[in-house]
Amino acid sequence: MAKITKRSEDYSQWYIDIVTRAEMADYAPVKGCMVIRPWGYAIWERMQRALDDMFKDTGHSNCYFPLMIPQSFLAKEAEHVEGFAPECAVITHGGGKLLDEPLVIRPTSETIIWAMYKKWIQSWRDLPLLYNQWANVVRWEMRTRLFLRTSEFLWQEGHTAHATSKEAMEEAERILGIYRTFSEQWMAMPVLSGRKSEGQKFPGADTTFTIEALMQDGKVLQAGTSHYLGQNFAKAFDVQFQNRDGQLEYVYATSWGVSTRLVGALVMTHSDDAGLVLPPKLAPVEVVVIPILKADADNAGILAAAYRVAEPFGDDVRVRVDDRDNVSPGWKFNEWELKGVPIRIEIGPKDLEKQQVVLVRRDTGKKTPTPMDAISFQVPGVLEEIQDGLMKKAKERLEAGCRAADTYESFQKAMDEVGGFIYAPWCGSRECEDRVSEETKATIRLVPDTAEDCGVCMVCGKGPAKRVPFGRAY
Amino acid sequence: MAKITKRSEDYSQWYIDIVTRAEMADYAPVKGCMVIRPWGYAIWERMQRALDDMFKDTGHSNCYFPLMIPQSFLAKEAEHVEGFAPECAVITHGGGKLLDEPLVIRPTSETIIWAMYKKWIQSWRDLPLLYNQWANVVRWEMRTRLFLRTSEFLWQEGHTAHATSKEAMEEAERILGIYRTFSEQWMAMPVLSGRKSEGQKFPGADTTFTIEALMQDGKVLQAGTSHYLGQNFAKAFDVQFQNRDGQLEYVYATSWGVSTRLVGALVMTHSDDAGLVLPPKLAPVEVVVIPILKADADNAGILAAAYRVAEPFGDDVRVRVDDRDNVSPGWKFNEWELKGVPIRIEIGPKDLEKQQVVLVRRDTGKKTPTPMDAISFQVPGVLEEIQDGLMKKAKERLEAGCRAADTYESFQKAMDEVGGFIYAPWCGSRECEDRVSEETKATIRLVPDTAEDCGVCMVCGKGPAKRVPFGRAY
Repeated sequence: MAKITKRSEDYSQWYIDIVTRAEMADYAPVKGCMVIRPWGYAIWERMQRALDDMFKDTGHSNCYFPLMIPQSFLAKEAEHVEGFAPECAVITHGGGKLLDEPLVIRPTSETIIWAMYKKWIQSWRDLPLLYNQWANVVRWEMRTRLFLRTSEFLWQEGHTAHATSKEAMEEAERILGIYRTFSEQWMAMPVLSGRKSEGQKFPGADTTFTIEALMQDGKVLQAGTSHYLGQNFAKAFDVQFQNRDGQLEYVYATSWGVSTRLVGALVMTHSDDAGLVLPPKLAPVEVVVIPILKADADNAGILAAAYRVAEPFGDDVRVRVDDRDNVSPGWKFNEWELKGVPIRIEIGPKDLEKQQVVLVRRDTGKKTPTPMDAISFQVPGVLEEIQDGLMKKAKERLEAGCRAADTYESFQKAMDEVGGFIYAPWCGSRECEDRVSEETKATIRLVPDTAEDCGVCMVCGKGPAKRVPFGRAY
Repeated sequence: MAKITKRSEDYSQWYIDIVTRAEMADYAPVKGCMVIRPWGYAIWERMQRALDDMFKDTGHSNCYFPLMIPQSFLAKEAEHVEGFAPECAVITHGGGKLLDEPLVIRPTSETIIWAMYKKWIQSWRDLPLLYNQWANVVRWEMRTRLFLRTSEFLWQEGHTAHATSKEAMEEAERILGIYRTFSEQWMAMPVLSGRKSEGQKFPGADTTFTIEALMQDGKVLQAGTSHYLGQNFAKAFDVQFQNRDGQLEYVYATSWGVSTRLVGALVMTHSDDAGLVLPPKLAPVEVVVIPILKADADNAGILAAAYRVAEPFGDDVRVRVDDRDNVSPGWKFNEWELKGVPIRIEIGPKDLEKQQVVLVRRDTGKKTPTPMDAISFQVPGVLEEIQDGLMKKAKERLEAGCRAADTYESFQKAMDEVGGFIYAPWCGSRECEDRVSEETKATIRLVPDTAEDCGVCMVCGKGPAKRVPFGRAY
């Protein structure tokens, strides 16, 4: 098995090596599209299950809206069409005939959903609608990267309708909290959270909330967004309801989503030069048991011991016995290391004599001989330690990656030399925001709720200014 | 709430009434497409979970292949392009530009998947590949019907690759068994199973296996198909592997799928003039507890009792307390009846005095006063009885709906008068098959494995002939 490129040599190639050699994804024959292979998809399925449970626990239901949207729908919301029309895939023919009106493949579903909400919402009694869908979307991309940016990607998109602005804003913030919890507790990926600046918000939103993570190369990654849409889409699609006072009012809305790019974020947060490192909660396999089989020997005893070790875990821990006889134990070690399985349990003839196994941690490489009888009791605790350890390490990296700069010059220097989140004073104007992003390729990642006045803007020198984190983003 | 149309008056309208009024689905603004609303989607999610577990238990992994397929790929398999090209939605523009080659939205994914399999398969060691994906597909349809036939639908499509013909054939039959088990044990929908005739098989398959169900109106419905594809797609995409003897050989394949049309089949199998009837195993809510609240009264005691009744079920039974105070108890009864919830539990002030509840079955309408303390123990048994009872009833209907005819005249008469599956002798020729379908709109649904010679063909009068079931299909 060829070695993967080291991070220090070529970070981008290291990422691609991991994704392709761990068989998480592959390039599709269609430009900009990817194939998600079973190992990558199993991680996405674990993410889906965890998020879906959280959405349902907070009263949301899943549903499904059409893939194809009449082109004219997109045009009904001015910012929205400007943001998305240039990225659309357009269907002009169906069933062998030219269509009367072209259809676009959804780049996001606000327009088709609000066209339906108009049918379903008449009164305050019909509200709120708390809907989510798991779906594919297409946004034509020129420069793509497996998981992180592809023309087609998988995501969930929540679309809710509310009777009051307050309720909708609370919903948008509640979802941001869910994204943050998921990111921290499942992905072991700490994030910054807050509102997007005017220049970075979703086309059609009044307010966009975001979670932002720091990758190992100092670039930052937008991991999830939740939008307070105000009455913009209700007005675009004329969705009014009779409120409790009997008056007609436009409906308030939110939308929010995370996508398969989270799989890419996961890779970049924890992995090392030996391959993928997975937090146990999202690992398709948490423990792999590898019997050390010898060619031309009687392996029955070792094999039986391997199954005996795996058996008591039951449904609580995802265990696999790698009993293949056409690859060597060393090959298996490498493969499961590359695939990021948190714990490897080795059993050889000498271990069997001593009634022990060797437990090997993927995160630290530490090997611990452990009595066979004790292993099933010890593993859950070790898995927790690994989950917590990955979070701790990522958090330390995030904390070390947040720096302050006061002048534009020191800002540019820090951005070029170390990257990460550079907190710098900004006056709040679109002009200064745009100038920084044009000149440095760094954008304002969010405006913290807690940002306080701190002198003058590093760009225009005018005050008051707030300290906001900039970063170069994936 | 307006009454739904009776089956005896207009069966088609009855079906549409149930699907739309039970809020399972609605018409989308795009021709031929539907919106799957939360109640319909929750049923589909239950179906997905059950099937997905069965696929994984038999060694299959999920993955995801692109939505967009180069038009030229479709043309590589002759039967396949002939079958699907006329139904395709075609993307001609992306990112604001005319594409060099048009893309089609997948009508099914054999071609894109076998293009990838070529990259992944070199040796017998790489086989088998047992992959499945849950995805949306588009097949342009002129005459659509919610769930049963829509231009876009959701499905799962399995695509497997094998080293031998025998193994692939066993896989195709194993999946047919899974579909049959799912249909019978989860949907309570008995089916006939067997091979499709030459005229009815999948474009590109050597053999298509099918399960076929009987609806209440005497029409039949193809509920799932599993295809043995032989080496057709391996040859079309030049996918060869080195076998154990070191020789190059084309790979053997299967593909198989069931779709959201199963939700339509479920509606048509069990429902009645009062609305949807759901088998408990697929019901999003198995038990609804309805406290009989009075306007302008202190309802605290009743409400508390309702929650107390629901509490002990835990995670084993899906229970909902309908505590809304803006609709009447009678309105709730109707709504949950319409939505097909298997058991309703009513609690009124008099019940509370007697420490009892009233258990009402959706399938029989039977009301049983039950001591409050006993309800949580009794419900699981009643749910099983309902599941079994629905299966028994559907099976009796299927058995009564299978008839024999010996002459073409008696065949046509039976088809016009009662429908169902009419078993009639057929010589095996495509000519006779086509003539029957043109003249009677009935098609050969399958060729039973057990079909024995039975005299002469009802069409051409030649022998030998086998008795095969014909039906008019959705």
